Amino acid sequence: MEPTNQQPFELTPFELTKEYLEKIQTAINQQENDLIIAEMEELYPADITNILYELEGEEAHYLVRLLDKKLGAEIITNLDADDRKKFLKNFTAMEIAEYVDVLDSDDAVDILNEQPKDISEDIIGLLKDREQARFVNDLMHYDEDSAGGLMQKELIKINIKQSITECIEEIRRQAEDVENVSSVYVVDDESILLGRVSLKKIILAKRGARVADIYDENIVSVKTTAKGEEVADVMQKYDLEAVPVVNIQGRLLGRITIDDVVDFITESAQEDVQAMTGISEDVEEDDSVWRLVRSRLPWLLGGMVGSFFAARLIHNFEDLLSKIPAVAFFIPLIGSTGGNVGVQSSSIIVQSLADKSGIDISLSERLLKVLKVAFFNAIIAGIFAFFGSLIVDSANVQLSITVSLSIFSVVLLASFMGTLTPLVLNKFDINPAIASGPFITTTNDLLGYGVYLLIVYLLM
Amino acid sequence: MEPTNQQPFELTPFELTKEYLEKIQTAINQQENDLIIAEMEELYPADITNILYELEGEEAHYLVRLLDKKLGAEIITNLDADDRKKFLKNFTAMEIAEYVDVLDSDDAVDILNEQPKDISEDIIGLLKDREQARFVNDLMHYDEDSAGGLMQKELIKINIKQSITECIEEIRRQAEDVENVSSVYVVDDESILLGRVSLKKIILAKRGARVADIYDENIVSVKTTAKGEEVADVMQKYDLEAVPVVNIQGRLLGRITIDDVVDFITESAQEDVQAMTGISEDVEEDDSVWRLVRSRLPWLLGGMVGSFFAARLIHNFEDLLSKIPAVAFFIPLIGSTGGNVGVQSSSIIVQSLADKSGIDISLSERLLKVLKVAFFNAIIAGIFAFFGSLIVDSANVQLSITVSLSIFSVVLLASFMGTLTPLVLNKFDINPAIASGPFITTTNDLLGYGVYLLIVYLLM
Repeated sequence: MEPTNQQPFELTPFELTKEYLEKIQTAINQQENDLIIAEMEELYPADITNILYELEGEEAHYLVRLLDKKLGAEIITNLDADDRKKFLKNFTAMEIAEYVDVLDSDDAVDILNEQPKDISEDIIGLLKDREQARFVNDLMHYDEDSAGGLMQKELIKINIKQSITECIEEIRRQAEDVENVSSVYVVDDESILLGRVSLKKIILAKRGARVADIYDENIVSVKTTAKGEEVADVMQKYDLEAVPVVNIQGRLLGRITIDDVVDFITESAQEDVQAMTGISEDVEEDDSVWRLVRSRLPWLLGGMVGSFFAARLIHNFEDLLSKIPAVAFFIPLIGSTGGNVGVQSSSIIVQSLADKSGIDISLSERLLKVLKVAFFNAIIAGIFAFFGSLIVDSANVQLSITVSLSIFSVVLLASFMGTLTPLVLNKFDINPAIASGPFITTTNDLLGYGVYLLIVYLLM
Repeated sequence: MEPTNQQPFELTPFELTKEYLEKIQTAINQQENDLIIAEMEELYPADITNILYELEGEEAHYLVRLLDKKLGAEIITNLDADDRKKFLKNFTAMEIAEYVDVLDSDDAVDILNEQPKDISEDIIGLLKDREQARFVNDLMHYDEDSAGGLMQKELIKINIKQSITECIEEIRRQAEDVENVSSVYVVDDESILLGRVSLKKIILAKRGARVADIYDENIVSVKTTAKGEEVADVMQKYDLEAVPVVNIQGRLLGRITIDDVVDFITESAQEDVQAMTGISEDVEEDDSVWRLVRSRLPWLLGGMVGSFFAARLIHNFEDLLSKIPAVAFFIPLIGSTGGNVGVQSSSIIVQSLADKSGIDISLSERLLKVLKVAFFNAIIAGIFAFFGSLIVDSANVQLSITVSLSIFSVVLLASFMGTLTPLVLNKFDINPAIASGPFITTTNDLLGYGVYLLIVYLLM
């Protein structure tokens, strides 16, 4: 590589424009291979991936096949799982095997797991790199969301008995396949993980030094069976760029790098938001109209069913309503206050369940505190409701008292339900974020209407 | 350091128990310094931070002051901003300066920015490390959420004219303060960033090699003015462990490491969830009862104000209600369906605004697509509402037609509002996630009731 002082230095990230995309599409359709290759050489792999999202399946296949295998493999890895599955339908098993051959083993396994079982077996059979085939076979046994499923087999390990000179030799041997290294792992003869040495230390080490003299034995590792969330928590808590994965005996099996965990964190945050907003599939704005329609229907109709129950409940008080129609004025107040309080309460618990630092609070302590908070909020909201409803309908003090009492009860009840629901869901290993979603909110609403109408019935 | 084959190897992360905490508290109160130091030596800094959260201010101060400065500094850095501010109230400016002296410059600036201006100036004046004082003064000019505010000044840079041997010398000189290095940055005589060399390459380079021969000129950098979100996006997209920060001339000023960005990503996800759930301060379950009460009141009472408007609106139709009380049965259906649809629509837009890959969709294309999706959902929900309301109140086909038409209109309207609101908020640089929050939901509800009662009034 030549010094490039004279070349302009690209600082701003590439932005995909319609004009650029059309240029590439035209080049593909007219098979102007040199032009395409020259253009793609200017881009980072992640930018080429973004172009793929905008191309037709056959166009995308043509483009990727023009490129170097390693580059193609990286581009394919960057695709979202769903899109990749669709995209690879245009590829033969032989073509896919060429990419799987050069990928990091964790990315290779992701691709294989997305394929039907017979095709993925074909691909493994077609792999030229027999070490990769062995890696992949090993990794496919682990649950996708466990540390074993997230790890890659590529890492540099050195024996504690070696000298620094031998160690550098070892790095030279192992380094070709391993990217993003800042440390090498130190193991004993049985491959038991003992610690790590940073590359910085190796560079700065004295000539005659031995690994045993300079290695750092403070090392955090995770077991293959650890859940993805646990790995993410550990890496965040200890600010790790990579974490070694060991089996139950402590034998070093692989490592998980931070970039895979960042993706994991982002995905789980998105899942929580989707659970909270009642969208049932992992959809994006540019999905098909029908897919978008379908993803919303379950909770949309589910919520409506809840409201029919509410309607049925209010139906029972028809006589009361025809006598005092003003009762109906405050139905929205009851419903939305209950809903808001429930969502607020559950979101605090969800957040606190996700945060594992500190001492676990016992259920009774937790509920006691929630009830205290709820009690004060309920009193303030109740007083507010009294005066607010008086302004809306000044003729009816008795109704204002009723509304005020109902709001007091609804805030208490919704806080309690909003706290308990995510805790119960969590016990059963269900994502507690759905407690802030429409189904539970609707249930809370129903309870609220019941309380309101009952108090109206008793008092008026 | 000695080889430690014989020592048990700690695989599982530390868990804080009540018993352990009591032991530490007793030791602090009885000033058993040796015991405390011995116990803390067994732990990682992040675990000691977790203990601090559970101690009283004076206890925590005592504990940290016993420890080595570097360790103490790391523990303090791990604290949440709010807690750190409270925690450091027990420290003198001189004590704080001792920690600021040994911190990475980005972490040092965080701490200084949390202090009142006069105290932070005192601290800077008390710093022993004059280079650090200069770093900190430089960094304090940048906006906290910009790349300049996130970056640290500590990095290793080498001149492109150097040889690998000189480069290793340079690393030796610069490396003491710089942790987590996997690359060094290559610059020209004017400190203009030209590229990078991985430590792996340096280790593997031939003796006589020059930096210019082996460096990698493909390097992504960000400008000091880039927003935190942009930095996070770039690092995620290109899978970077660290990104160099340059000024407008391309001069290398600092670097941002992935761990700071992971924290940034997690925080923004939490902010979004809080915006969506209507909790107005950054509270956690273990905050004081009063703080928890206060954080919920704004949206709780704000939502109630919205419902009073709804009550006032329904009030106008009192005569209608006393004639046909069944109209009241479906008020919850209208409100909650409008709310659910609005939240679903806005969350899809919020997600799509956050995801910057691909071609930007024009506003008209976007709205057209939303309207298509809304139209199908509205038809299905409308038909569902017709039959549902018929089951609730079979005597009243005319009312069922009215409810069905209203639901059709409400779904259309709420989809439209739910799409437009986050787009408008985003234009004005307000977090679009609040569009899924209670205030906007309440506004949607109001619109829904208006449409419903108007249709009832016109048709019945």
